Amino acid sequence: MAKPGIPKGTRDFSPAEVAKRTYIINTIKQNFEKFGYQPIETPSFENSETLLGKYGEEGDRLIFKILNSGDKVKKADLQALSENNLARFSNSLSEKALRYDLTVPFARYVVQHQNEIEFPFKRYQIQPVWRADNPQKGRFREFYQCDADVVGSKSLWQEVELVQLYDAVFTALDLKGVTVKINNRKILSGIAEVIGASDKLIDFTVALDKLDKIGEDGVKAEMLAKGIAEDAIQKVQPLFNFTGTTNDKLEKLAQLLQTSEEGMKGVEELRFITTNAEKLGLQTAALDLDVTLARGLNYYTGAIFEVAAPKEVKLGSIGGGGRYDDLTGIFGLKNVSGVGISFGLDRIYLVLEELNKFPETVTVTSQAIFLNLGDAEAFYAMQAITTLRRAGLKVEMYPEAAKMDKQYKHAERRNIPITITAGKNEIEKNIFTVKNLQTGDKTEVTLQELQQLLTK
Amino acid sequence: MAKPGIPKGTRDFSPAEVAKRTYIINTIKQNFEKFGYQPIETPSFENSETLLGKYGEEGDRLIFKILNSGDKVKKADLQALSENNLARFSNSLSEKALRYDLTVPFARYVVQHQNEIEFPFKRYQIQPVWRADNPQKGRFREFYQCDADVVGSKSLWQEVELVQLYDAVFTALDLKGVTVKINNRKILSGIAEVIGASDKLIDFTVALDKLDKIGEDGVKAEMLAKGIAEDAIQKVQPLFNFTGTTNDKLEKLAQLLQTSEEGMKGVEELRFITTNAEKLGLQTAALDLDVTLARGLNYYTGAIFEVAAPKEVKLGSIGGGGRYDDLTGIFGLKNVSGVGISFGLDRIYLVLEELNKFPETVTVTSQAIFLNLGDAEAFYAMQAITTLRRAGLKVEMYPEAAKMDKQYKHAERRNIPITITAGKNEIEKNIFTVKNLQTGDKTEVTLQELQQLLTK
Repeated sequence: MAKPGIPKGTRDFSPAEVAKRTYIINTIKQNFEKFGYQPIETPSFENSETLLGKYGEEGDRLIFKILNSGDKVKKADLQALSENNLARFSNSLSEKALRYDLTVPFARYVVQHQNEIEFPFKRYQIQPVWRADNPQKGRFREFYQCDADVVGSKSLWQEVELVQLYDAVFTALDLKGVTVKINNRKILSGIAEVIGASDKLIDFTVALDKLDKIGEDGVKAEMLAKGIAEDAIQKVQPLFNFTGTTNDKLEKLAQLLQTSEEGMKGVEELRFITTNAEKLGLQTAALDLDVTLARGLNYYTGAIFEVAAPKEVKLGSIGGGGRYDDLTGIFGLKNVSGVGISFGLDRIYLVLEELNKFPETVTVTSQAIFLNLGDAEAFYAMQAITTLRRAGLKVEMYPEAAKMDKQYKHAERRNIPITITAGKNEIEKNIFTVKNLQTGDKTEVTLQELQQLLTK
Repeated sequence: MAKPGIPKGTRDFSPAEVAKRTYIINTIKQNFEKFGYQPIETPSFENSETLLGKYGEEGDRLIFKILNSGDKVKKADLQALSENNLARFSNSLSEKALRYDLTVPFARYVVQHQNEIEFPFKRYQIQPVWRADNPQKGRFREFYQCDADVVGSKSLWQEVELVQLYDAVFTALDLKGVTVKINNRKILSGIAEVIGASDKLIDFTVALDKLDKIGEDGVKAEMLAKGIAEDAIQKVQPLFNFTGTTNDKLEKLAQLLQTSEEGMKGVEELRFITTNAEKLGLQTAALDLDVTLARGLNYYTGAIFEVAAPKEVKLGSIGGGGRYDDLTGIFGLKNVSGVGISFGLDRIYLVLEELNKFPETVTVTSQAIFLNLGDAEAFYAMQAITTLRRAGLKVEMYPEAAKMDKQYKHAERRNIPITITAGKNEIEKNIFTVKNLQTGDKTEVTLQELQQLLTK
């Protein structure tokens, strides 16, 4: 029989990995709740019509469809198959699909439960999503998303809070030097107006983003090559020297975008968010106004966020988000503005691993193991174990009276730091012999002393 | 546009529901870890060959299959469809399937990772599973399983610990009066030997289980009707008066099964487990030797467990498990004995709800909400909020300077117990006005006093 495996792009998580992932997730959760976000959960699969058509053509292709059960497969549209219309053929065999992200299910949830929800509604959701993407390093077919969104309020205080939330989570994870990049869709629209070519906006930001690498001349050459007019590039000259404080940058933008009403609205929004976030103070994160930030351009309508890992780690974005003015419109509920952010669990894991930032206490190993010397001794040990567990301690007994060597090796391989032995001698004196496996030190203790020793 | 919905048999969980489910799951997790169990996670979908054929024909039918993506659907076996061989047709369209339980993926995990695992391996796993079952009250197509299993040890101390683990979890959930029923597959085999008809064993236990309802004569009549011989029924007469202490019951069984080697082995195993569990003492659960307990007959080879909810709740089993001698054999790894138990999350939820046993502290509501009186006041509030959150408190601000009425109503509907206001007057004096929404009491406090007030 061949050794069994798992589907490509999926993962098994060992106890040590689960412990580390749980540490990150719990840190995120605690901060979500401190900020007033409440958890919801939605089903792993949704009706196909809920998901299809929401992520563009490419997205539709990447959605995992669930095959209809039993007799329903008889409805297979063979005509579509013969016409090589594989999408129609697939849809005739499937009515449900695994969720592709948490945003569309959230929009569906809000519309479906709109009469039970008290708005503004601050929700968080930490659940797996699935994509039939080509697996590659750091990209999986099953992965967790960790999202916090508020719907039903246009207040910019939400954006201020979301910057603080990023700072709070990464500070709690002891991940210093994170940069929260911020931009605004309206500023991008303003720039498009100024350069007189909204269809060239992506080309423009992509080129501008290379300023550090290829220099001003290189960027300008690329812009010209992409068909952006020379006088348009002239107009945005201040963006080639876009340095200084956030305030300096805002002044430059206000100058540059003075003819664009939407652009000026973007400057005002950014001013509110950055001024308040800076006056309230961040603990370890830096805030950086970055006009090249253009993620999810068609999706966002106001603020855009992206979080960069500390510079010493080459890993790109570990979070992102922004404001969208019509999330629930796709399900028929108009005029519900939302803003939200997401944490990239897998990336954050890699960063913490690389920087050696997982606390030593993040482990699911028992605190001590009682060695097994036979039935009577095992019963004596189990009495102690029962008491210690009821006091909240993590202890266990080796299940069999195997050779001492084997039992010690088991403790070592499991990284359990302490072994406890009780043979005839100890039972008579009602004590236990405790051995620290790191130092080799042995001490005799009473049960009460043992409990104290393990409690601290 | 029709209001969107979710697939039948699936559920959305509101914040209050997630909080309660998390409370149960965390209680189970903490106890799993106290007992030395370590978490693993496996992918939501497995290769079809890992799952198919492991749950019987009925099980295979209930497995959700994932439709192949892209061009692969061209491999549809139309011949199979035309022959109405729907299973073969479905399998030609699908290579992956959603997991049906956590046991088979665990067996696959153990075999796949056998060289990294240190045995005996105590693992727990709390993840959703999916079944294309007909949804009905309390039965869902997506639900969580909470399993703890040990593999690689035949020691009966594991069974003793599993009884203690049930007791520990239900005690921690303040669910008194739970009964852990215990039996042994070998005792059932012994009874089959004694009644001389192993193929009648299920009929026998089903009939015997009705003793309380239809009385001795009724049970005997049913047994006769099922073709169990009169003298066989005579031989097991002690089972019709199967009362007294566990020890009394074991004596009766030892008498009854003295001619069956396997039966006597079962009596010895049960004696070890029950004697030790009782000598070590249970906190709130009762242990009950129940010879009619025959769950998963083909699966278990030793101890069988089932947990009954407190008698005042008519809800049946809230957990179960047992020992299986060859779990990993299906994947080619022989001679790995295992024993495990499972907690029924949905049933436990219903029991706690019915008995009103969820602690009031199980909530994800903020501790206090700052009302919003305008930009300057909001900034003053946000300064306080920033400090309080960094001290670990759950506080928030109403995002907009809406009418006071609306803001108070929001606090009430969200069940937030305290509102905090700070207008010009408070800002001048550097204080806050705290209102207890239950009593209506108002007090003026400094930020430090506010922090103390919310911390206790």
